[in-house]
Amino acid sequence: MTPPEKSPHSYNEAPFGMILRPVGIIRNKFQNPFLAAGDDGIKMRGPIDVIRAEIREMRREISEIVINENLMDILDGIDQYSHLVVLYWAHKVPEPSRSLVKVHPMGRKEFPLVGIFCTCSPARPNPVLLSVVRLCGRQENVLQVTGLDAVDGSPVVDIKPYVKNFYPQEEVLIPDWMQRIQKEVGEGNP
Amino acid sequence: MTPPEKSPHSYNEAPFGMILRPVGIIRNKFQNPFLAAGDDGIKMRGPIDVIRAEIREMRREISEIVINENLMDILDGIDQYSHLVVLYWAHKVPEPSRSLVKVHPMGRKEFPLVGIFCTCSPARPNPVLLSVVRLCGRQENVLQVTGLDAVDGSPVVDIKPYVKNFYPQEEVLIPDWMQRIQKEVGEGNP
Repeated sequence: MTPPEKSPHSYNEAPFGMILRPVGIIRNKFQNPFLAAGDDGIKMRGPIDVIRAEIREMRREISEIVINENLMDILDGIDQYSHLVVLYWAHKVPEPSRSLVKVHPMGRKEFPLVGIFCTCSPARPNPVLLSVVRLCGRQENVLQVTGLDAVDGSPVVDIKPYVKNFYPQEEVLIPDWMQRIQKEVGEGNP
Repeated sequence: MTPPEKSPHSYNEAPFGMILRPVGIIRNKFQNPFLAAGDDGIKMRGPIDVIRAEIREMRREISEIVINENLMDILDGIDQYSHLVVLYWAHKVPEPSRSLVKVHPMGRKEFPLVGIFCTCSPARPNPVLLSVVRLCGRQENVLQVTGLDAVDGSPVVDIKPYVKNFYPQEEVLIPDWMQRIQKEVGEGNP
């Protein structure tokens, strides 16, 4: 008997064993994400002025990336880089928010309703978030970094070297609403 | 009876339900990764000259990112960006290779033995790989892009907008061996 043919679009079965193992944890003084995710979308935790000041503070502040002690050697040589790409899990995003498809960026109704993949919303099908950070130092299994947008307790998924040549050298276009967010929050990160 | 106290470093239990759901699949003509991962490290699939030519070809070639049809609206507005960050799963990395801790970059013994987090090795604890791509077009649930380093059939984990301000504007340092790889492969990506 032949097995039933699989639809080429049945990707929800997770046939690849795509299970992440936390390799460490992020420690800093930030307890709450700026954006809260609910079933009906995302919204900012406070008024824009407060959020803006917090985002700026977060970028200056030192975070620690504590790697599992049994994995410590995985960092050997890392001090040769000035910047790193950190992937981490948005552990405060409730499970149902992973089903959101479209949002107003930052939960602000004055911005157009767009697909999640056009936004940096933490609520996404796979809430793996990305920060490029500046490496300040390493002590054994602990990295000190600035520019990390994660909240305290976020599980670390991966660390990669930041290599400028892997990123566009040519002109880059972004939508008007994203330009406006950039201007509001202040440019330059980390 | 009180439960035993948990060690702060027992992250291997995956307590956060960090299970990824493929949101789509990558289609292109590249069937085999450049780097093969085994229990004892990584090695290049062929001589450096051949690999170098293939990497250059891969960067020019158009790949398709086929998003699950039921998620199609998650792309709405994406054509306002020129570049995207694509996270995908390195599905050809065998499970035991996720335990590698140190490697010679690109499997080349002339490079120093360094921790996996200093390298772009596909064999890593969580084989979530990252490419910044140029968006050439969208037809419904399919994106055409260039600069995608993934092989055919790779499950897509996430797509994020590429926003230049999120990346370092200041000087970036990388190790000598990474500089040498950059020179060999040819600069500029995507």
